[in-house]
Amino acid sequence: MKQRVVIIGGGFTGLNTAKLLGNKQNIEVTLIDRKNYHLFQPLLYQVAMAALGEGDIAAPLRNMLANYDNITVFKGIVESADIANKTIFTDFGDIPYDYLVLACGVQHHYFGNNQWEKFAPGLKTLAQAKEIRRRVMEAYECAERTKDPVERKKLLTFVIVGGGPTGVELAGSIGEMSRYTLSKFYRNIDPKLTRIFIVEAAPRILGSFSPELTSKATRSLEKLGVQVWTSSMVTDVDANGVQIGNERIEAATVLWAAGVTAIAIGKNMGLETDHLGRILVNEDLSIPGHPELFAGGDLAHFELENGKTLPGLAPVALQQGRAIGRNILLDLKKKARKPFRYRDKGQMATIGKNKAIVEIGSLKFDGILAWFTWLLVHIYFLTSFRHRVFVLLQWGWSYFTFSYGARLIVNKEWRFYPDIAKNNNSNKTTTNCDG
Amino acid sequence: MKQRVVIIGGGFTGLNTAKLLGNKQNIEVTLIDRKNYHLFQPLLYQVAMAALGEGDIAAPLRNMLANYDNITVFKGIVESADIANKTIFTDFGDIPYDYLVLACGVQHHYFGNNQWEKFAPGLKTLAQAKEIRRRVMEAYECAERTKDPVERKKLLTFVIVGGGPTGVELAGSIGEMSRYTLSKFYRNIDPKLTRIFIVEAAPRILGSFSPELTSKATRSLEKLGVQVWTSSMVTDVDANGVQIGNERIEAATVLWAAGVTAIAIGKNMGLETDHLGRILVNEDLSIPGHPELFAGGDLAHFELENGKTLPGLAPVALQQGRAIGRNILLDLKKKARKPFRYRDKGQMATIGKNKAIVEIGSLKFDGILAWFTWLLVHIYFLTSFRHRVFVLLQWGWSYFTFSYGARLIVNKEWRFYPDIAKNNNSNKTTTNCDG
Repeated sequence: MKQRVVIIGGGFTGLNTAKLLGNKQNIEVTLIDRKNYHLFQPLLYQVAMAALGEGDIAAPLRNMLANYDNITVFKGIVESADIANKTIFTDFGDIPYDYLVLACGVQHHYFGNNQWEKFAPGLKTLAQAKEIRRRVMEAYECAERTKDPVERKKLLTFVIVGGGPTGVELAGSIGEMSRYTLSKFYRNIDPKLTRIFIVEAAPRILGSFSPELTSKATRSLEKLGVQVWTSSMVTDVDANGVQIGNERIEAATVLWAAGVTAIAIGKNMGLETDHLGRILVNEDLSIPGHPELFAGGDLAHFELENGKTLPGLAPVALQQGRAIGRNILLDLKKKARKPFRYRDKGQMATIGKNKAIVEIGSLKFDGILAWFTWLLVHIYFLTSFRHRVFVLLQWGWSYFTFSYGARLIVNKEWRFYPDIAKNNNSNKTTTNCDG
Repeated sequence: MKQRVVIIGGGFTGLNTAKLLGNKQNIEVTLIDRKNYHLFQPLLYQVAMAALGEGDIAAPLRNMLANYDNITVFKGIVESADIANKTIFTDFGDIPYDYLVLACGVQHHYFGNNQWEKFAPGLKTLAQAKEIRRRVMEAYECAERTKDPVERKKLLTFVIVGGGPTGVELAGSIGEMSRYTLSKFYRNIDPKLTRIFIVEAAPRILGSFSPELTSKATRSLEKLGVQVWTSSMVTDVDANGVQIGNERIEAATVLWAAGVTAIAIGKNMGLETDHLGRILVNEDLSIPGHPELFAGGDLAHFELENGKTLPGLAPVALQQGRAIGRNILLDLKKKARKPFRYRDKGQMATIGKNKAIVEIGSLKFDGILAWFTWLLVHIYFLTSFRHRVFVLLQWGWSYFTFSYGARLIVNKEWRFYPDIAKNNNSNKTTTNCDG
């Protein structure tokens, strides 16, 4: 009898578990994801900043897994599972399993202030990336139109909440774009006057890197016109800006790169989770008391010997996906499972052209060498050959021309113009214009 | 004193008028468009079918016009104008003009049945192209999930209303995709069973071409599995399919390629329009009684000597845009205006790989030669060099691998997952799934 492995989530973990079990005898794999594609999350900010298109960093899961006959992909939503009866509940019916792999990651999180979301979108999905792109480009369009200098200043102010790699990459991109690229496109505004703020609650940005690299990254950001505010806790976000205790920044565009929380599936299933909602896992990535359940990637709380947990990085998710696949195969061969050992690939962040930081163990470097390292690593890990070619070409083009791809504002509304007009009025919060 | 030329619409007409007046002394040009980009409309169906990305066929108007210092671009909505006081009314204030060029084209039209729109989106904008892509790919996802064979048949049925070039191109693409590309991606359905219908009210499809080419195109469509129903007037469209008099086709996806109507600006300004809302223009493309007003492209009703009107084709719009620009320049030089003469570039439509029809005057051909002609012409007219390079590369890739770009279903919703779940329930009409 075939073993039924059900995988929830087609990110780095789920995809790699699936591939390891692909075309293996006596295994039937079902992979379920809300989306029909695998997303190369580390480059998502480039879609938000119009440097790449959505097709450059995402590929349909069924295409990626087409050659594994024993894998079925469903686009669907999994709400919870009945552990006792080994069955998951989806929006298209119940599915029984012998092994269940939970790998549906995290979403952004407003620390109990969900009302901030509509003013400050996060960056975890393609839809969010395109919403951010729309807001940023729309702000420049509105600034070009307005005759009120105070309104114009507000429209040319961008606040990024959170100084992790995502926040730094977003801020650096806006800095570079405003200082080097946009100037010649506008007649009534000077895009170089764009104000960009990173607002970080901790005493320094990029807290997971060494203080030395934080310092270098901060200088690089400043050179692009980004103002870095640390020890600054956002206390309110509204349609006109952010409040930081007694300080206030008026901004038409606020982007959220501050917090994440695990998708609620662990909690819904009654599993033990940490303060971020991540599921506690054993050394072999199975869930305590349930050898048939696994969790990996951002969704898993994996504790190291020093008491720390593994960070939410692509290499962790990828390696855990493979480890889960290997342990399921060991089970079927009646062999002992192997504990997961993370091989540290280091971490990196990019700030702008020729500006990046890289930290691998005690090796630290920055500048153009770091930037090329960042570039090569990301190209290498882009999942299909087609993507590698097209991304390299677009980057090459941008590098030498300093002009990015299409900064299109594609309306979400596809219906008649009369309907759009009505809609625009009722959706004031999603546009920056007061026109 | 500088002459103020205001252009409404950044399509082929508006863009070309603007370029002709660019960097000319004593002229100030203001171009206003609802969108921030120029769209290469002839390839829009390829975005709908996931063969190209939105960035491949659209470019921001401000980038395209950046080198003309006397041109200001605004993203905005023009509702009407006061002809007597030479002022247009926009959503960001009034703008005075000396010359006004109306070039805002057409939108799709349901012949008085606007309630059909939500069941059958048209294809005139990028947002619509992406909505069509989403519906087509979602239908396959839902078909893979369902266990009900009748439901599955409905999900694998696509009806295209209208047998003009757009309808033929959409149907041909779905035919090709279902017969050659999708098979290996699904486990529970056979995409080759996809039913595709073109429903055309006239006695033949592609009525603007010669009957001989219609016949060849029909055979090419049939070979791709497309069923061509002519003399078939759609009498109703609902969430489950279309009614054609006493006949009925159950289909989860209906696409509208049947009718267009001019943007209402002519009517709003009290100008004389034809039954399609197009503005009647003189030989020099000015509007009768108003030498300072011009209209061009799809929005204009230009009558030929034989009593026919010029069709809504890109070459017509492009040539008219240049002619308007030239006539304004002649005015400023105090010379007589020239009547517009259309240089017929012929017409063409593509059905699938190596399958197209071309008709230039009495010259008619089809097959692989027509297809290569189509390809070269479209590449040549793609507006920027960057676009030409990237589209050629993607087409080259698709031609040899028969695999298209990313068939991503990008949700319109960018907010929290809990919000999406709620939203899905209230928006049943926009999803094909009953799951």
